[in-house]
Amino acid sequence: MTEQAKLHGFFRSSATYRVKIALALKGLTFEYLSYSLRNKEQLAPAFLALNPQGLVPALEINGAVLTQSLAICEYLDELHPTPALLPNSVFARAKVRAAAYAIACDVHPVQNLKILNRLRALGQGDDVVDIWARTTIEEGLAAYEKLIPAEVGPFSFGATPSLADICLIPQLANARRFGVDLSATRIRTIEAACLALKPFAPIPDSP
Amino acid sequence: MTEQAKLHGFFRSSATYRVKIALALKGLTFEYLSYSLRNKEQLAPAFLALNPQGLVPALEINGAVLTQSLAICEYLDELHPTPALLPNSVFARAKVRAAAYAIACDVHPVQNLKILNRLRALGQGDDVVDIWARTTIEEGLAAYEKLIPAEVGPFSFGATPSLADICLIPQLANARRFGVDLSATRIRTIEAACLALKPFAPIPDSP
Repeated sequence: MTEQAKLHGFFRSSATYRVKIALALKGLTFEYLSYSLRNKEQLAPAFLALNPQGLVPALEINGAVLTQSLAICEYLDELHPTPALLPNSVFARAKVRAAAYAIACDVHPVQNLKILNRLRALGQGDDVVDIWARTTIEEGLAAYEKLIPAEVGPFSFGATPSLADICLIPQLANARRFGVDLSATRIRTIEAACLALKPFAPIPDSP
Repeated sequence: MTEQAKLHGFFRSSATYRVKIALALKGLTFEYLSYSLRNKEQLAPAFLALNPQGLVPALEINGAVLTQSLAICEYLDELHPTPALLPNSVFARAKVRAAAYAIACDVHPVQNLKILNRLRALGQGDDVVDIWARTTIEEGLAAYEKLIPAEVGPFSFGATPSLADICLIPQLANARRFGVDLSATRIRTIEAACLALKPFAPIPDSP
């Protein structure tokens, strides 16, 4: 635990942002190293040596390299149980994970840069690609609101931020980029509660 | 624990198949109720009452309804620790989860029926849609092989099946449907080890 963790990622990557939030919520310090997805730096040998999958983020921690943002969040939660990212009850944990996966499995992979670029390569115009992304996010956030308890707050699952919030907040940055209207949603109040906490601050663009 | 679990799903749904494997590995009996995705039965009121997200599967168990296949698998593993779907060491757990998510987040959502139908609605022909699915699966399975330990077996992470195998095997059914050549891969030997176990048997099509 003496060695400083290194987060290898990209500021616009939702998955990198998730890990950044989890590290910060746990009070762990880390060095951040940027790999521009625009320049495909995640496919350069230096990064592939860390993660052969060629996807950000990768986290160097405790002498090992971990990948997949949700696996990293669970790792951090198991190793540093306080503050907890998941509740104690087995049933409640399943509910928080289900909301997190509704973003991480059903929304994010369908509207990330790689997929949108594949649509463009098939000859789809920017307007169609934007609608694809916006529709995916709108449907996903509507589903998310149904998966969290009604009228409890200020976070998705009560008084403290959870794995669900860690997935939600980075997705909202994408939502805004594609013009999703969040004004009438409960999600907006959850976002405000999260962004009032320093660990949820976005990763700044690298100079 | 006296009440019988009810698995609501569809035989061709990878996510339903994952939960079926996990229930069977844990030795839990369950009733299976089929909702045809071809007929959009997952969007009918009877199913939306179980899962407002309108996605199979939903699992009725212990007086509650759970959704999201990976959340259900973690729930079953926490409630019934033997046989374990995740190893004991925190680091090893992160590695197994990373491989599972490489399928469940990076492959399956990008090539499921819903997304392929959206591509068709954009005017893409069946040949383009098939290539989309096949390429996604090929890239994902190649990544999966890099995320599992080399030359240990017979399962993805050693001598017993794990959450990673639970995600892999249903994906292979899709791989075959789209003509992915698995003959030279280590995945094929993992598949053989899994399919030799009764819990990994596919869900039969409903009559």
